[in-house]
Amino acid sequence: VTDARRFRAEAKMPLAGNTNHLGTMYAGSLFSLGEVCGGLIYLVSFDYDQLAPLVKEVRIRFVKPARTDVHVAVGLTPEQAADIEQRALDQGKADFEMTLDLTDDHGDTVAVVSGLWQVRRKEA
Amino acid sequence: VTDARRFRAEAKMPLAGNTNHLGTMYAGSLFSLGEVCGGLIYLVSFDYDQLAPLVKEVRIRFVKPARTDVHVAVGLTPEQAADIEQRALDQGKADFEMTLDLTDDHGDTVAVVSGLWQVRRKEA
Repeated sequence: VTDARRFRAEAKMPLAGNTNHLGTMYAGSLFSLGEVCGGLIYLVSFDYDQLAPLVKEVRIRFVKPARTDVHVAVGLTPEQAADIEQRALDQGKADFEMTLDLTDDHGDTVAVVSGLWQVRRKEA
Repeated sequence: VTDARRFRAEAKMPLAGNTNHLGTMYAGSLFSLGEVCGGLIYLVSFDYDQLAPLVKEVRIRFVKPARTDVHVAVGLTPEQAADIEQRALDQGKADFEMTLDLTDDHGDTVAVVSGLWQVRRKEA
């Protein structure tokens, strides 16, 4: 995690230590980079005293081999975050989708992650 | 990997060492268990002197928290394997889809993985 501020976060997966037998980044490491974004956006966007996060579904499409570190930025608008939080507080839970581009050091997309996450109201 | 024979393989991900902060299995470990099935089915089904494997897309739907080791079995019929191999040899590459149930020690489904893999003809 390289940067996190209200409603927005960035993360990086180093190539070193995450390679497959071809010397490119392992599919599971790319998945983890995408999946962690649900937790990151939770941390920077929602009231974690009242809400807990959950991952429901993740889809990853591999576009090209990753031969450098891989980067991802994730963000919600304040309005999106407020809407999700309000739905969760009102209804007990709220789903939200995000689609994320995973890019290499040259800015090329190496994978696209679509995820369905949920925040749930914590029981008192 | 617990078992692999022609056209069929089984694999297991131990809970120990793969837990998240809730003590259930980490999403990335479940993904890896599903993703590796593409490589397993390649090893047990195709002529690896002539064909190389590639993962194109993986979708994982989390059904319930995994509190035990997690198991997966993967298999193609000999006819399916022959069809994929023939398409790859004729056209240079062939996509194939598999949907896999990841189950716990009680036989309950903890996640469902759908993947799109490809085998490509190796250049001489």
